[in-house]
Amino acid sequence: MPGEQPGPGRRVIKLNTNENPYPPSPRVLEALARAADETIRLYPDPEARALRARVSEVYGVPADHILAGNGSDELIALVLRATIDPGDRVAFPVPTYSLYETAVAAQGGQAVCVPFPEDFGLPPRVAAARARLTFLCNPNSPSGTVVPLGEVEALARAVAGVLVVDEAYVDFARETALPLIGWLPNVIVLRTFSKSFSLAGLRVGLAFGHPDLLAGLRTVKDSYNLGCLAQAAAHAALGDLPWMKANLARIKTTRARLTRELEGLGFRVPFSEANFVLARRPGTDLTPLARALGERDILVRHFPTPRLRDALRITVGTDAEIDALLTSLRELV
Amino acid sequence: MPGEQPGPGRRVIKLNTNENPYPPSPRVLEALARAADETIRLYPDPEARALRARVSEVYGVPADHILAGNGSDELIALVLRATIDPGDRVAFPVPTYSLYETAVAAQGGQAVCVPFPEDFGLPPRVAAARARLTFLCNPNSPSGTVVPLGEVEALARAVAGVLVVDEAYVDFARETALPLIGWLPNVIVLRTFSKSFSLAGLRVGLAFGHPDLLAGLRTVKDSYNLGCLAQAAAHAALGDLPWMKANLARIKTTRARLTRELEGLGFRVPFSEANFVLARRPGTDLTPLARALGERDILVRHFPTPRLRDALRITVGTDAEIDALLTSLRELV
Repeated sequence: MPGEQPGPGRRVIKLNTNENPYPPSPRVLEALARAADETIRLYPDPEARALRARVSEVYGVPADHILAGNGSDELIALVLRATIDPGDRVAFPVPTYSLYETAVAAQGGQAVCVPFPEDFGLPPRVAAARARLTFLCNPNSPSGTVVPLGEVEALARAVAGVLVVDEAYVDFARETALPLIGWLPNVIVLRTFSKSFSLAGLRVGLAFGHPDLLAGLRTVKDSYNLGCLAQAAAHAALGDLPWMKANLARIKTTRARLTRELEGLGFRVPFSEANFVLARRPGTDLTPLARALGERDILVRHFPTPRLRDALRITVGTDAEIDALLTSLRELV
Repeated sequence: MPGEQPGPGRRVIKLNTNENPYPPSPRVLEALARAADETIRLYPDPEARALRARVSEVYGVPADHILAGNGSDELIALVLRATIDPGDRVAFPVPTYSLYETAVAAQGGQAVCVPFPEDFGLPPRVAAARARLTFLCNPNSPSGTVVPLGEVEALARAVAGVLVVDEAYVDFARETALPLIGWLPNVIVLRTFSKSFSLAGLRVGLAFGHPDLLAGLRTVKDSYNLGCLAQAAAHAALGDLPWMKANLARIKTTRARLTRELEGLGFRVPFSEANFVLARRPGTDLTPLARALGERDILVRHFPTPRLRDALRITVGTDAEIDALLTSLRELV
């Protein structure tokens, strides 16, 4: 179940699905204007060679260690289809990105959900689950918290099967598991252009991993999984990293301010390294607060589960959006 | 295994993957220019509501009977995932679109491949296969031939499970199974924007079927399977049907001429209602001919299987492209 996407025409402050509040690089829009010509009558490159070549340059990973997908959601599904048989165990700490459990069920796997402790440190039972596949969303959603690289590496060495490190939010954090790819053939790192690169509308994700692992994903992927405009946009976005980094800096500054202000209002906020924060009032059901914000056209994410009933996940928007949120919260709490 | 996609910079006459030789409507390019703005930072509508509303108007099918996919390839995979369990039988006449067999295998199903007779009439063993799922590519690739609507309806009533009528090429044909949707709750009709609408690069497909059937597909689809630009382009393409129909008319005229000329060169050509023809020299391995054409930068499709070794599948290109093909064929055969 994705977050609410308001229909056209409704003016809202949208802090519920972790989109970037800042636009993509002008170079992306220029590249799209160039690419949206009559060549769209032709099939796209099924191997996304130009995009993967640029990814290789930017991240220092050989192109044969890179696979492009129709959003990292598609790559999550491909990993499951390539890796597990019905009944196989798939482990991950929870609460986390809800797609893992849905996708494991769709593939007939057995989800082993290991609760995070209160501080969102990595629970040892994840490594001990003897799963065929393990997911680690890092930074984690909805907590924003990070498992340090040393622990990720230890987890990769400890698990029985494949470890997927889902780094959808990693550009907002301090370290990445990408260097593990060259050393540990059982690690897949996932990235997306939907968050830091402001391209959620175009659906582009990347998987980094050993060529043997990626070969398994290729056999179950649609040949033409990624359209030509999506490939062109991602390629252009990687050609303007300063733009993306300037947006990161703004979001991190706003994130720090939002965290301080929320704490001032009595919320507990785990230290976030993502483009959202989890604001908690332990023991208080925040369903009414989420609804009250919604009535003011401020959308935040509330998860109706026992563990998260006392929490709101709030995307770091522009300063003006966060000011409006804080003004409303001051009136409502 | 898709057809060869030449890299950028290579000038070829591309008659191997059934792309439309004519560009999409200018309205599509205008719509893309409008849509490629900073709103691409937002997630696309997971329900593709605007697109489905227009599809509903154009095809006279209620919007709850319509699902949009990342190309019809994704929809084929979704049908399999939603419908079959490991070991279930999936029947289809062959030779046909090779993805069916690949996708059935990827999902752990058991493909029941029933050979077409020489005239590509529907083999009765398809209905008798007691399959959980049956595919009928109609018009069929690579033969271009059509199973008449009455036989499709009889097949839908005879099969034990779901019948998928893959109408990727139907705009080049005379009749569609779409009217069956309202009567037969076990029928899914697939369409694509890749052929008649000249949008192969953008990956948009449609599934038409009973809402209960489509609900199964929705549970296994990625939430954001279709990007905002793909949605906008397909929406605009449906707003300029005269453009598409003018291209259809040109392609059908060229198809008739190509068929006559190929027959004059001694090929047997089944009557095609698609945007390609199958040119056969019974008993002759056409591998060398396909290679010789390739050396002249004319790409056609040759399938290295016993049944199709004596055939080339040739996309109906522009008249100039077909002239160049025919000139080369006259020299080579």
